[in-house]
Amino acid sequence: MEEMARVGATKGGGVNRLTLTDADKEARDLFALWAGDADLDLRIDEMGNMFARRSGREDDAPPAMAGSHLDSVPNGGRFDGSLGVLAALEAVRTLNDESIVTRRPIEIVNWTNEEGPRFPPSMVGSGVFAGAIPLEAAYETRDSEGARFLDELERIGYRGDAPCTPRPIGSYLELHIEQGPVLVNEGVQVGIVEGIFGLTWLRVTMKGERDHAGPTPMHLRRDALVGAARTIAAIREIPEKLHPEFVATVGELSLSPGAINVIPDEVTFSVDFRHSEPELMNEARNLVEEAVHREAERENLEVEIQDVGSSTPTAFDAGVAQAVRSACEESGYSHRSMWSAAGHDARYAADLGPAAMIFVPCVAGKSHSEEEDMDWEDGCRGCDVLARALVKMADS
Amino acid sequence: MEEMARVGATKGGGVNRLTLTDADKEARDLFALWAGDADLDLRIDEMGNMFARRSGREDDAPPAMAGSHLDSVPNGGRFDGSLGVLAALEAVRTLNDESIVTRRPIEIVNWTNEEGPRFPPSMVGSGVFAGAIPLEAAYETRDSEGARFLDELERIGYRGDAPCTPRPIGSYLELHIEQGPVLVNEGVQVGIVEGIFGLTWLRVTMKGERDHAGPTPMHLRRDALVGAARTIAAIREIPEKLHPEFVATVGELSLSPGAINVIPDEVTFSVDFRHSEPELMNEARNLVEEAVHREAERENLEVEIQDVGSSTPTAFDAGVAQAVRSACEESGYSHRSMWSAAGHDARYAADLGPAAMIFVPCVAGKSHSEEEDMDWEDGCRGCDVLARALVKMADS
Repeated sequence: MEEMARVGATKGGGVNRLTLTDADKEARDLFALWAGDADLDLRIDEMGNMFARRSGREDDAPPAMAGSHLDSVPNGGRFDGSLGVLAALEAVRTLNDESIVTRRPIEIVNWTNEEGPRFPPSMVGSGVFAGAIPLEAAYETRDSEGARFLDELERIGYRGDAPCTPRPIGSYLELHIEQGPVLVNEGVQVGIVEGIFGLTWLRVTMKGERDHAGPTPMHLRRDALVGAARTIAAIREIPEKLHPEFVATVGELSLSPGAINVIPDEVTFSVDFRHSEPELMNEARNLVEEAVHREAERENLEVEIQDVGSSTPTAFDAGVAQAVRSACEESGYSHRSMWSAAGHDARYAADLGPAAMIFVPCVAGKSHSEEEDMDWEDGCRGCDVLARALVKMADS
Repeated sequence: MEEMARVGATKGGGVNRLTLTDADKEARDLFALWAGDADLDLRIDEMGNMFARRSGREDDAPPAMAGSHLDSVPNGGRFDGSLGVLAALEAVRTLNDESIVTRRPIEIVNWTNEEGPRFPPSMVGSGVFAGAIPLEAAYETRDSEGARFLDELERIGYRGDAPCTPRPIGSYLELHIEQGPVLVNEGVQVGIVEGIFGLTWLRVTMKGERDHAGPTPMHLRRDALVGAARTIAAIREIPEKLHPEFVATVGELSLSPGAINVIPDEVTFSVDFRHSEPELMNEARNLVEEAVHREAERENLEVEIQDVGSSTPTAFDAGVAQAVRSACEESGYSHRSMWSAAGHDARYAADLGPAAMIFVPCVAGKSHSEEEDMDWEDGCRGCDVLARALVKMADS
């Protein structure tokens, strides 16, 4: 872990390993080296996804897969992604040391471009692998400087020969830091992740009238920021009406003209809401739209609500989750079931076979920043649970 | 009016006459030409304020002054300012035509830099004249390109010899479009302006915690935008608790980091509130601070409230206002008393002698944009009232 963390290391203790940069290549080279040392057979597909394979007794059976990603957001943390790849490698080394042969082959995967800030969208390597994103679309993506994904993939030498197309998976496991405060706050050692929240992204625009802040009496105003502020306050109240784990966030807001003495005539803001229940997601959308229209009417504003992204909730496989639970119990770790509110490659892998994830606590629930940190003991427990559950699935 | 409106004319029907630009010089040259044609004696002071003087029977008596400004905001309207200068010129022409000699001399003034967007603050010409702003400070002001006020004043040839220091004024009258919707909505022809609202400008910063919008449960969030939105909604309710003419506005808002899937950790917004009663201004400040602290506590945020500007309410002179009222009644115009919620040079002139303003309706209450418009009949009524009131004051 520490050697990998030196690749693209930042002064603040994080890593800067944007997809298909030199730092990404260096991390991949290191993984390839270590996979070779562990006698694994490395295959790289057209998307640069890396599969390090260990043979099984029934080598044609769909593989028990485990992995995550080695790329990072700008100035991200050391554990987000890397933990899942290197823990799987460690599990295989242990099998090697103990000369254990599993029924199914095991494949350790490093997915290309999980994060997505350089080449949006995120999870594109697993997305193409699952057949959800066309290969050509991924290839043609350009970064903010105009560099093309395919050219950068070839430049770092990771455009492989293996086709990046759906194939059956015996099982998929992904160990990851939680990226949230639930485990650390509850003092629970392991999260058994039973699914990934669905997500809806909206962009709301409210239009009123630009007027001088002095001579315009309050009752004649059509203040777009007042309408937006009341709507944002109302959106904050929606989750508690629906479910304790429902989340809703307004993260972006821009206004025009933005002068201290001018009533704003246009405000645009984003809405992000997430949950595991499709019906509650629909209800949330209705409540958000209701709030937008109610507050627009109250302030005499025009409104537009735009869909900018969504994904449906993905329930993982009960059998794989049970394997994780059994592993926790064998080792005597405290555990709880939970859903992931953030996206992971496991979401796409679940389209090809039974999947689940394992979460370990991270300090203060922080991620996607240099502040991200993990207790090594938590990481070791996660590694142990991954190894045990992986063997169970490889022998199933 | 129409000839003046061609100076710096924009395609959208407005004018672009930022202070001390070539367009400002051209407008000044035109005013100087017309003042000469009307046999007025032009004096220019060190700030570029232009005084066109008509002698009185008692030529040493403090002058009856009338005027406004010829500069504009970027892409401003044709009437904001120019109306008050040219109407005063028209009044004097009428006196010339009818060979009327007043007791006091009359001075028509074009104040330098009323608007202020190129060289903040606004009303700096009258401010220096009233002794409220130091001449040196005004001279050293630089625009966004680094050009110095004094250099630009010299470049256009309007740094005059007359000292820009306080001197007694017999009376001051300023005709201006209302820049608000009150007169036009009430169908009233003339506003008798009895004072200028006091103004308080605050900048509020709320700081919470940056977290991922997915995995952070609602009850653990410290969302700076939620705190700001609730505060802005609360500020909207403050004016009606205080007075029907009290106004409060949030015109600026910026947030960090501003990403769709990140809980904002810092939001800064402005507050602008205005009224005629100092006690209500104090009460409003208390209510704003109360709202900020209440909402910050509710969302567990840190706050900072910064003073960024203020002016006390300025009550005009009852005698000058009465002269305006009598003029309206002589001509049979409907009229109402009101206060100006926007700043005007009359605020500083009132420090040197009795002052009042005259408002005429503007279309839809719009100003500071190319949309600004005025009914010519309203303008003529304003001009008539100004002339009558000016003669009354010049003979008083």
